[in-house]
Amino acid sequence: MRILVINGPNLNMLGKREPDIYGNETYEDLVNSIDEWGKENDVRVEVEQSNHEGDIIDLIQNAPESFDSILINPGAFTHYSYAILDAMKSIDIPIVEVHISNIHGREAFRSHSVTAPAASGIIAGFGTKGYIIGLDALKK
Amino acid sequence: MRILVINGPNLNMLGKREPDIYGNETYEDLVNSIDEWGKENDVRVEVEQSNHEGDIIDLIQNAPESFDSILINPGAFTHYSYAILDAMKSIDIPIVEVHISNIHGREAFRSHSVTAPAASGIIAGFGTKGYIIGLDALKK
Amino acid sequence: MRILVINGPNLNMLGKREPDIYGNETYEDLVNSIDEWGKENDVRVEVEQSNHEGDIIDLIQNAPESFDSILINPGAFTHYSYAILDAMKSIDIPIVEVHISNIHGREAFRSHSVTAPAASGIIAGFGTKGYIIGLDALKK
Amino acid sequence: MRILVINGPNLNMLGKREPDIYGNETYEDLVNSIDEWGKENDVRVEVEQSNHEGDIIDLIQNAPESFDSILINPGAFTHYSYAILDAMKSIDIPIVEVHISNIHGREAFRSHSVTAPAASGIIAGFGTKGYIIGLDALKK
Amino acid sequence: MRILVINGPNLNMLGKREPDIYGNETYEDLVNSIDEWGKENDVRVEVEQSNHEGDIIDLIQNAPESFDSILINPGAFTHYSYAILDAMKSIDIPIVEVHISNIHGREAFRSHSVTAPAASGIIAGFGTKGYIIGLDALKK
Amino acid sequence: MRILVINGPNLNMLGKREPDIYGNETYEDLVNSIDEWGKENDVRVEVEQSNHEGDIIDLIQNAPESFDSILINPGAFTHYSYAILDAMKSIDIPIVEVHISNIHGREAFRSHSVTAPAASGIIAGFGTKGYIIGLDALKK
Amino acid sequence: MRILVINGPNLNMLGKREPDIYGNETYEDLVNSIDEWGKENDVRVEVEQSNHEGDIIDLIQNAPESFDSILINPGAFTHYSYAILDAMKSIDIPIVEVHISNIHGREAFRSHSVTAPAASGIIAGFGTKGYIIGLDALKK
Amino acid sequence: MRILVINGPNLNMLGKREPDIYGNETYEDLVNSIDEWGKENDVRVEVEQSNHEGDIIDLIQNAPESFDSILINPGAFTHYSYAILDAMKSIDIPIVEVHISNIHGREAFRSHSVTAPAASGIIAGFGTKGYIIGLDALKK
Amino acid sequence: MRILVINGPNLNMLGKREPDIYGNETYEDLVNSIDEWGKENDVRVEVEQSNHEGDIIDLIQNAPESFDSILINPGAFTHYSYAILDAMKSIDIPIVEVHISNIHGREAFRSHSVTAPAASGIIAGFGTKGYIIGLDALKK
Amino acid sequence: MRILVINGPNLNMLGKREPDIYGNETYEDLVNSIDEWGKENDVRVEVEQSNHEGDIIDLIQNAPESFDSILINPGAFTHYSYAILDAMKSIDIPIVEVHISNIHGREAFRSHSVTAPAASGIIAGFGTKGYIIGLDALKK
Amino acid sequence: MRILVINGPNLNMLGKREPDIYGNETYEDLVNSIDEWGKENDVRVEVEQSNHEGDIIDLIQNAPESFDSILINPGAFTHYSYAILDAMKSIDIPIVEVHISNIHGREAFRSHSVTAPAASGIIAGFGTKGYIIGLDALKK
Amino acid sequence: MRILVINGPNLNMLGKREPDIYGNETYEDLVNSIDEWGKENDVRVEVEQSNHEGDIIDLIQNAPESFDSILINPGAFTHYSYAILDAMKSIDIPIVEVHISNIHGREAFRSHSVTAPAASGIIAGFGTKGYIIGLDALKK
Repeated sequence: MRILVINGPNLNMLGKREPDIYGNETYEDLVNSIDEWGKENDVRVEVEQSNHEGDIIDLIQNAPESFDSILINPGAFTHYSYAILDAMKSIDIPIVEVHISNIHGREAFRSHSVTAPAASGIIAGFGTKGYIIGLDALKK
Repeated sequence: MRILVINGPNLNMLGKREPDIYGNETYEDLVNSIDEWGKENDVRVEVEQSNHEGDIIDLIQNAPESFDSILINPGAFTHYSYAILDAMKSIDIPIVEVHISNIHGREAFRSHSVTAPAASGIIAGFGTKGYIIGLDALKK
Repeated sequence: MRILVINGPNLNMLGKREPDIYGNETYEDLVNSIDEWGKENDVRVEVEQSNHEGDIIDLIQNAPESFDSILINPGAFTHYSYAILDAMKSIDIPIVEVHISNIHGREAFRSHSVTAPAASGIIAGFGTKGYIIGLDALKK
Repeated sequence: MRILVINGPNLNMLGKREPDIYGNETYEDLVNSIDEWGKENDVRVEVEQSNHEGDIIDLIQNAPESFDSILINPGAFTHYSYAILDAMKSIDIPIVEVHISNIHGREAFRSHSVTAPAASGIIAGFGTKGYIIGLDALKK
Repeated sequence: MRILVINGPNLNMLGKREPDIYGNETYEDLVNSIDEWGKENDVRVEVEQSNHEGDIIDLIQNAPESFDSILINPGAFTHYSYAILDAMKSIDIPIVEVHISNIHGREAFRSHSVTAPAASGIIAGFGTKGYIIGLDALKK
Repeated sequence: MRILVINGPNLNMLGKREPDIYGNETYEDLVNSIDEWGKENDVRVEVEQSNHEGDIIDLIQNAPESFDSILINPGAFTHYSYAILDAMKSIDIPIVEVHISNIHGREAFRSHSVTAPAASGIIAGFGTKGYIIGLDALKK
Repeated sequence: MRILVINGPNLNMLGKREPDIYGNETYEDLVNSIDEWGKENDVRVEVEQSNHEGDIIDLIQNAPESFDSILINPGAFTHYSYAILDAMKSIDIPIVEVHISNIHGREAFRSHSVTAPAASGIIAGFGTKGYIIGLDALKK
Repeated sequence: MRILVINGPNLNMLGKREPDIYGNETYEDLVNSIDEWGKENDVRVEVEQSNHEGDIIDLIQNAPESFDSILINPGAFTHYSYAILDAMKSIDIPIVEVHISNIHGREAFRSHSVTAPAASGIIAGFGTKGYIIGLDALKK
Repeated sequence: MRILVINGPNLNMLGKREPDIYGNETYEDLVNSIDEWGKENDVRVEVEQSNHEGDIIDLIQNAPESFDSILINPGAFTHYSYAILDAMKSIDIPIVEVHISNIHGREAFRSHSVTAPAASGIIAGFGTKGYIIGLDALKK
Repeated sequence: MRILVINGPNLNMLGKREPDIYGNETYEDLVNSIDEWGKENDVRVEVEQSNHEGDIIDLIQNAPESFDSILINPGAFTHYSYAILDAMKSIDIPIVEVHISNIHGREAFRSHSVTAPAASGIIAGFGTKGYIIGLDALKK
Repeated sequence: MRILVINGPNLNMLGKREPDIYGNETYEDLVNSIDEWGKENDVRVEVEQSNHEGDIIDLIQNAPESFDSILINPGAFTHYSYAILDAMKSIDIPIVEVHISNIHGREAFRSHSVTAPAASGIIAGFGTKGYIIGLDALKK
Repeated sequence: MRILVINGPNLNMLGKREPDIYGNETYEDLVNSIDEWGKENDVRVEVEQSNHEGDIIDLIQNAPESFDSILINPGAFTHYSYAILDAMKSIDIPIVEVHISNIHGREAFRSHSVTAPAASGIIAGFGTKGYIIGLDALKK
């Protein structure tokens, strides 16, 4: 089994950015814990991060060639990128959308996900542990 | 560890109601799979279902006396019960909100959760498997 | 043929409540006229009233066991109870929704029915005679 | 007793137009069943259809001279013709508004009736049988 | 000088329709008082009334051939007929829009005039005397 | 007969301010033409102008003691001064509201008058001639 | 004199729930201070609390038999229970609505009260002292 | 091949009306260029224009008897005539909707087409050349 | 103890203005009953009224020098004066906001208070008795 | 003559993505049919596709150096990229906007084009044939 | 060079009012730093403050007689005073609008400036230093 | 001191694009005047421009390593790029947002800045001189 993890804009700033909302864990910690999960579960996991909407669309479109499913945190693109929504709709492998914070408890614009309608499942509010929950879900 | 699972209105109709949205699994199947999970994981799990908003509030308020956390699917109350939101806010144990279907891909009123701001985490779109994902998350 | 008539909150106050809108007929008068219709038409009619949303959901869910169709006036629940909407959707027998007053000619919130999309037919504005019109319609 | 039945735009296309919404019965079938009802009930019924808003207003204004009540299906004019609303308000005989489909379960613009506030009663969702229900109601 | 007075739908019902809003004067009274004004002021005045939007558009388009200005009460068309707005914009003679009642003090939809942006001047709330005020204004 | 003319904020800048919208006539010209009208019609007319909302309210409240009616151009207060609306409602003499430009053909906020519901009549779009039209109307 | 005090959902959690908003006083303290007021003022006061909308409607409907007036804090039902609004409208004794916190200074949905239009008076923002203020007001 | 071209209200004023938006070509020029296209392409083309919504509905309903497809410019009806939408839906031949100006670059109400959902294709902004583009498209 | 009572625009018209909403008591009656309350309760009460927003802001800003608390009825300023809101926020003494009528049961714009978020408490709907209730509350 | 064809995000997935909406033709088929058109019409056509908003802006800005006009399908960027709108406004050559599906008959967000105000013409709903229609239009 | 600095309502409370938003500097400090800037830059600067909207309008209208430009902080009037907007539009000298706090990061109503469309430039979020930035800008 | 100036999409077209809004100065002129300012003020200034949202996010994230503050004109991204907002929030150095034109006096979508809440200060409407004003402000 092969899973592609896609992180959207500013997730590389994890740990530096608004720790009261996103926690103190750094992006490196997150990548490490995902890698570790991959080894423990014998799943090939690849983690990508980009601040470029177009790169994320490219990653999604090409994913079916090399991966069985996608775990995506579209970051702020969640709230306006209909282009990522269309990319998610254009492929057939399962996609789980994950959010670190509880998007329903923040600014109004963050409670709306334009990409979620194309997701197989959504996980939000569990901090960076949401990634592991999502990977477990995709594995099953 | 003790977890209370609360199912809101009409979830007892699972399997009978709109199977193209909610799947063919019956409510009994769901309860059984939760019980099984409890035994496998050595967690005392209790499952309650009610069509009565007041009963659900009572269950939430009393939960901290006997349980360490709550897994709740508020059903249609998700979309208008500020009273359940307040009940969830009035207690201190972790609460995970679960939805069987992807609420972002259905009628407009279903994409809005008034209870979610009080949840520790939200899981949606995984079918009845979302309950097991939520229980796993609460266990960790 | 067996028909269940369900009356929502405050309908028991008929005749006492805002007679300029709801008329002078009392709730007892209404029940009597329905009973009379049952005898004349040789239809077993049962009339229930509750101020409790949960009771109404229970009544709807259990109706198919003992009744062939439902005539419902959800009262004020018409305007916000997505839980009753879901209950109506979860069963397969015909449901006619009736309103005593013309909901389009009153306060803005009363012109919107969240339950109507699940009704087979809607009757409004005929006063308490709308019940008899609805029963006639269900009989045919 | 004399009743005027007014059918708005495109109702003459009944049976040809979107049969999954409006059924297979043709407009001629509908007119025949209304005529039959008239004979059975000894009521003089006249059925008019027009695609012209102005014609419908003329019909409404003149109705009180020759009829005791009106049964109207304003078709798409239901959703924007304030002029028909005003015509309905300008006369004193009872007017029942009928809709073939359940207007609450379709596109958003169809759930709003601008003419309904001037109707004595509204009947919707019973298919073409709604006309007979409405005639029965007017007769009583 | 020649002035065309155009009355929209249901204005022929004046005196019969909602006298608490539109007064007791009949449509004939109104036409007479306009005719009288014409004689007194030596202005050729022609009064037209139609319930047909298309007729009103035809009247507006042809007016410049025989008239120097228009006094129009578009009735309910005021609130949705963009086609009349376009007709008013397509000609070059002055157009005064008149309303019998104060449209700002009634139902929400009546406070909005889609035709007014094309009017040279607007007069509202003076009852049928508004016509004479408008004629005086056009004469000057 | 005595009429009070009240001009709201910035009307004293007439002729200096945005002449493409308000014309080239100065405020002095306007006052003179009103005075002249008073002499010709044997009506005592007093013209007040203020940039102070409170002064305008005071003027309205005291008007019934010395005047038979009011002609008011509330200027920009038209669009938000509920206090002036209440002042207009608190007295019993006729009030005509006048606007120099066509408020329906400008910025969105200008098409809404919060004061108009308390006016006996509204005149808009006739330039400064609207004052004379309004005075004529009040005289009759 | 007899007054019924009705407390809506989650008010029994007072003192435990969000003390920065609702204060440290417990629900028992509140009931005691109300009882004390009753003794001091020689008024029979009964205090009810329920998380069940239907129970609150029942209490309101039956109140006129045993009480002269009602003091109600509908809790979160304030913001969506049109059924409680209708119950309040269906009886004739005075009803005072009380809120512990200033509902205008919190989340948007809390600034809107659907029940208030049926209240004789509203008191908000005085903490639990608002109950005593309301009782004093009802006594007078 | 036979094509019916339907022009809505005020299109007969082309060349006279707002030339900065609609150009200097007259309606006769437009009809001539369509006729010419018909001859060059050996297609029987008939051009109709009406200011009457009802006439346009009649034309659409009857078109399938004599024509293979429709090119329609509904003029201002584009923005509110749900009756024309329903007429377009009630027939099975291809319909192309054409607009002379770019409806997205003008007043807000013009950017919304209620009829477009029933069109096979939409062409806008090419001036009167859009008709020829549409005819070419229908021919293919 | 010293309390400043501030009355906003048009409250001086009490008794003259819309008695069905505001009652028959005159402003002088109100001032007298407040004075009387002051004497009975041994509190120095000063009553100010102004139609000028700026005067009310000045009164609020200066109040802390001479008074211990404020009772304010901002009249129509309640609905749009963010400047009064800021003035209320700029001082530290308790402020109670009082409204004579039930603002939730009137025109839509009156149900919204922009000043209330800065009030310690709000009292509405008790008629002029609300002032005495507010004074009692401030005294405690 | 030289035309630049710009395809926005996910158009390279044509034929793979939602064939019920976008048809079975692949992106290669589309490019081939455009190339063929170029040869037949002796026009140099270049086709570009990118998932990157920035690339599309670069292409638009540089187009005037090498091309006489642009045919653009902005894909999902149509609905939110004000940056592409600005790029289109910043150049002077004609731009035709094309959409494969009828954007007015789909999800609400797709009926709104933020880029269209800067287009010379818009073509929608003709499937991939819309490109050829657009190229024909640009050639003329 | 002569510059008029106008401060709107409550700015005189600077330093006393919500220091976390507006800082600890007092209004006197602000006036002093402006005076100092005037001396250093050899510009005659006059600073006015008023809580009265009418005074601010008067100041703006008269400014061109004695000043070359205006620096204005309209305080809360920013958000609703269309009268100040009109005053700003009625004069021809440059006007810079300044806000102490970042109006985009606060309550929703504060992110909207109705006066800004008439300003030559806007400066916000720099604390009281924004005044000096604005004066520098006006000097250049 | 080191300042990074970031220019968003289409700013490189300055002087070519809509000169009535953005002026005649070219982008090269702007860069030159910024460079000159740097030399005069002994500040190392680097100017970047990109049409790519992702590049702008990268620039912001990396800025703190080499710069003390940022001056940014996000161009059209101002109105929808929540990703740039998050990038601005993720770093700790001061950021001034600058707009060439007065965004409050243009199309509705331009009056809303989604990025401004993360800016230390905002400057708008001063033309390209706003950059120098912003640099002066950052220097102080």
